[in-house]
Amino acid sequence: SKEDFDLAAIYVSDAQYNRNIYFDTSPQAVRLYLRYNHWIPKVLLLFFIVVDLSLAIFEEPAVFLVPSLYTMLVELLCLLVFTLRLVHYAKVIPRDKFWKDPKNICIIVVLVLTLVDMIIYEALIATDCYAVRWSRVLRPLLLVNVTEGRQLRRAFRSIRNALPQIFYVFLLFMFSLLIFSLMALKLLGKRGLKTLDGAPYFTNYLEIVFDLYVLVTTANSPDVMMPAYNSSFFFAIFFILYILINTYIFMSVFLAVVYNNYKKYLKEEVRQLVRAKRHKMVRAFAVLQEQRAEGGEPVVKQANWNQIVKLVQPDISNAHRELLWSVSDDNNQGFIGKLAFVQLADLLNIEVITLKSRPHPLQSACPALYLSAPSRLLCRLIQHRAFVIVYDLIILVNAVFIGLDEANPLIAYSEWVFLALYLLEILLKLYVFEPRAFFSRHSFWNCLSSSQIISTRFDTIIVVSALIATIVNSAMTSSGNYTSRQILDIVFILRVLRLIRVVDSIQRFRAIINTLIRIGPAILTFGQLIIVVYYIFAMVGMELFKGKVKFYEDDSSDPAKAYCGNPLLKGTAFAQLNYCKNNFNNVVSSYILLLELTVVNQWHVLSSGFAAVTHISARLFFILFHIMVVIVIINIFVAFVLEAFFVEY
Amino acid sequence: SKEDFDLAAIYVSDAQYNRNIYFDTSPQAVRLYLRYNHWIPKVLLLFFIVVDLSLAIFEEPAVFLVPSLYTMLVELLCLLVFTLRLVHYAKVIPRDKFWKDPKNICIIVVLVLTLVDMIIYEALIATDCYAVRWSRVLRPLLLVNVTEGRQLRRAFRSIRNALPQIFYVFLLFMFSLLIFSLMALKLLGKRGLKTLDGAPYFTNYLEIVFDLYVLVTTANSPDVMMPAYNSSFFFAIFFILYILINTYIFMSVFLAVVYNNYKKYLKEEVRQLVRAKRHKMVRAFAVLQEQRAEGGEPVVKQANWNQIVKLVQPDISNAHRELLWSVSDDNNQGFIGKLAFVQLADLLNIEVITLKSRPHPLQSACPALYLSAPSRLLCRLIQHRAFVIVYDLIILVNAVFIGLDEANPLIAYSEWVFLALYLLEILLKLYVFEPRAFFSRHSFWNCLSSSQIISTRFDTIIVVSALIATIVNSAMTSSGNYTSRQILDIVFILRVLRLIRVVDSIQRFRAIINTLIRIGPAILTFGQLIIVVYYIFAMVGMELFKGKVKFYEDDSSDPAKAYCGNPLLKGTAFAQLNYCKNNFNNVVSSYILLLELTVVNQWHVLSSGFAAVTHISARLFFILFHIMVVIVIINIFVAFVLEAFFVEY
Ligand code: NA
Repeated sequence: SKEDFDLAAIYVSDAQYNRNIYFDTSPQAVRLYLRYNHWIPKVLLLFFIVVDLSLAIFEEPAVFLVPSLYTMLVELLCLLVFTLRLVHYAKVIPRDKFWKDPKNICIIVVLVLTLVDMIIYEALIATDCYAVRWSRVLRPLLLVNVTEGRQLRRAFRSIRNALPQIFYVFLLFMFSLLIFSLMALKLLGKRGLKTLDGAPYFTNYLEIVFDLYVLVTTANSPDVMMPAYNSSFFFAIFFILYILINTYIFMSVFLAVVYNNYKKYLKEEVRQLVRAKRHKMVRAFAVLQEQRAEGGEPVVKQANWNQIVKLVQPDISNAHRELLWSVSDDNNQGFIGKLAFVQLADLLNIEVITLKSRPHPLQSACPALYLSAPSRLLCRLIQHRAFVIVYDLIILVNAVFIGLDEANPLIAYSEWVFLALYLLEILLKLYVFEPRAFFSRHSFWNCLSSSQIISTRFDTIIVVSALIATIVNSAMTSSGNYTSRQILDIVFILRVLRLIRVVDSIQRFRAIINTLIRIGPAILTFGQLIIVVYYIFAMVGMELFKGKVKFYEDDSSDPAKAYCGNPLLKGTAFAQLNYCKNNFNNVVSSYILLLELTVVNQWHVLSSGFAAVTHISARLFFILFHIMVVIVIINIFVAFVLEAFFVEY
Repeated sequence: SKEDFDLAAIYVSDAQYNRNIYFDTSPQAVRLYLRYNHWIPKVLLLFFIVVDLSLAIFEEPAVFLVPSLYTMLVELLCLLVFTLRLVHYAKVIPRDKFWKDPKNICIIVVLVLTLVDMIIYEALIATDCYAVRWSRVLRPLLLVNVTEGRQLRRAFRSIRNALPQIFYVFLLFMFSLLIFSLMALKLLGKRGLKTLDGAPYFTNYLEIVFDLYVLVTTANSPDVMMPAYNSSFFFAIFFILYILINTYIFMSVFLAVVYNNYKKYLKEEVRQLVRAKRHKMVRAFAVLQEQRAEGGEPVVKQANWNQIVKLVQPDISNAHRELLWSVSDDNNQGFIGKLAFVQLADLLNIEVITLKSRPHPLQSACPALYLSAPSRLLCRLIQHRAFVIVYDLIILVNAVFIGLDEANPLIAYSEWVFLALYLLEILLKLYVFEPRAFFSRHSFWNCLSSSQIISTRFDTIIVVSALIATIVNSAMTSSGNYTSRQILDIVFILRVLRLIRVVDSIQRFRAIINTLIRIGPAILTFGQLIIVVYYIFAMVGMELFKGKVKFYEDDSSDPAKAYCGNPLLKGTAFAQLNYCKNNFNNVVSSYILLLELTVVNQWHVLSSGFAAVTHISARLFFILFHIMVVIVIINIFVAFVLEAFFVEY
């Protein structure tokens, strides 16, 4: 029946896309589930999640301040959308499954808490009390817990799995840190040494612990050692031992533990995925199976199989479908058993590139000219290795010209020559190669087949954009109008980007870049992970430190500019290094500051600055960030790149 | 014959210790080879290599200056020893093999060049010309190329194998760096921005390349970004992209490439070792084999086998030897075939721990007392878990007391209490456990069996040393003499080291520490590698930069102290941060400076300081050091720790 086919199609489709939802199999629920998986509600949901997260830009402390009434209304709309999506989900899967799933509970809790927070906030504001929108910290949990956040959840799970092991190494590391600090206090505290700014050196135990923690991150090397080293050679041995044990050994062990766990977990995850996929396909088979008259194992007939494939992938070509069938039914019996049917999900995922050698459109249009001797010579020339080398040389000359002063009229003129040369190259390539091969949607996404198609397309886009931007710029300049700095910037960037293509001519480089392109999508998952973790730290950081450090524009003559508008910063390294713009005064600044903390260098100056304007314990916030992001997440990222590289390279 | 046995014993011994020397098999050469492998000439050679390397301490620029006549005489003596050792080696192996081996050629070249350099140097000095002892750079090559530098050569080979791959990634990275620098020049160079010290920002291409290279190492983050970021939010995007691509992606790819090569190479190396070992054992078998009267495959009889084992390992016990034979000859036939014989090398490497449960000496001496009820209760108490917990608590209390001010008489007195408690613990343990099990040579080195024996012994040494040091200290104080700061330091260090043993009570920690102890010996190979590479850079650095930066003691009132005695450093970050003692004025300073460069932080300040006192191109020395040590060697070290951890943990 139609309903059976729908059900089977859903199983196959779930198996194909590795969806793991145990939906209700009643016809009504199946129809709802089909709608649940449609791309429109999915995209809408993700859009509203992005809107919800972006509210931080408009809420106090804001980049663009909007009255809280408007942001609250938008947030209510978002909450409504999330609730509707959750209700839809609740109708799709059995009730007991729904309430057992921690993802759903988490979403409900976040929604309720957000609503409660909004009400409390408005009430407090109305009575002129101090109010904090504390539920903003919870927003990224929505992104993690919706059905579509599968990849992100996997990344978080891999972190959670590594945590116990990391924890034990971390305890040992902390023990080593505390012991070394105690030794430093006893060895150096009573010598009356002074730091560079005249403060007593290594006399306070907690300060020593912080300084030595910073030394593990290498951020205060060699400054923290200098007073001791200046007083005697032998104290350098203490610091060398410390760095060897804590920076080199312990940090490598952290990476080793994280990587070890990651590999173990990855294997388990892949095993589970394969099991779930098989399970779904077996269910689809059970729905479609028929008993043959001759007896034996149940089978699926070709007609039913065809209908399922059409339902699962409506845009599949007949030739492709017949190819898949012939692979499954290799004895040409007209039916397939369970074993052959289960493979369908994987077969559908294999991209079949139909490489038809179509004649060039010019050949069809005007064969006499296109196949004439000079035209064929031209084609041979363009396909020759020398053509590539000539253009590589042109790029190198172009690079030199870009480096020169563009105010010189000769240089400005040369830009037109280079643009013409690049355009000529594209036209010549189009003359030789099938244009549709370059611009078809299918090959566009098929990164695996060749990086050359990507790079040719990248070239074309860059060159055409550069042409347009240069024309716009020239038109504005020659018409005597004000030349926009932004357009000039874009022209420059496009000019420089054009140089990248030289990499593509070297086989070795192409192999490395192909690897990087292939691990790209997974790196994006880490991008999401970082955004989620940053969001939480940004929200907390903004509540703790907003407005404590002020930034004055370069042309400001306010004397407070020298100490970032906060007298507590007078004489600190933070103010001396002019770090005033590194603050938590809005979400964009916060993100950039957190990125600087991730890079680690000078993080102790940043953390000491914020400790100076609040309380010494503010350093805990920065240490926690360092542990969470640098020790855990960056190590997972490195482990991931290592593993991906071993598989691909 | 005796000579056959000697030959076979050498083959077995070579196989056992993985020696890979194809010596001449004439009886005379075999005798020489036996002498060549004796420990005395080996230790002598290593001693003279250390002496040769240590000459750098006494040569200009020296830590302790000695007239060059004396250092030259010592160096000549070293050269003589190396030549003798090489001549010995030449007599052991066939002539054609000797001249084909690049190791020997390298040693000869180094010896000849050193001699030539010494003559030229003396001649130039005699005629009052400027002279450089350039051959000092070659000294570490001796350590690498002698027979005993096998591990070190392996480490260098693994670097050489990774180099081509690293080179391609490095080219791609350099390309990215140059493109980003060009973009930075075009985007930021014309905005009239100023750095913190008022210099024009991003206007010189080569300066930008250097600044962005430093940014990859994170050492100038966020300072290099601040002028652009202060002028607009959007420029931060440029730096974020740059850090993402170059610091995170490229640096991970470097590690991945190094690790990938390391793993591949390691497998190949292990395969070769196994092959060479088998080859040696087959040769030994060929020497000893006899044809049995019944025919069949040739065999080795037990008597011959016994003689060989006694020759190879003279101190082996009869029981151990019989155990090995019974393993080899499992059918109890009185002879073994080739297959069983080849295993001998591995069998000899297996440590057999003879765990005899000997009665406690006190029990033998005075059984009535030792086996009485109170004595047995005491033993049970000491072996109880609570005993460990009580002592862990004592350690924690001790830690707090150490942290407090030791000038307080109560605290000073408490030290005696703690020492007494620790001594009591050792005595109680000796009362329960077999003392010989703790102090026998065999179990001392047998780290694999248990870290607990090591830690108990470590405890005992620390506690007894602390007791002695404290008594000496008290005696000196009470006799009214001057209390030596050095002895006090030792007392403090020993006190703090005592706290380490708390780690041992926790099973999880013990597992991690056992892993670290097991990979320890291999880490020492990396230590040698680092010393070799540092030595070369230190020699070159001392010739380039000696005396350019001077250090003035803290109590000096010389105004030149503010700029390290070199007016060119006035106003530089190098002088402001008081880095004067980070110089190349002697080999110890050079090593500490190179270590600071390895830690990376502030390396741009150090390199810019030395560029200021010489020439801007001096930065190349520091960049080269960064590439060689941080990108290549440290990554190999991390790869090594990762791999070791996966195998062990
Ligand atoms: Na750093």
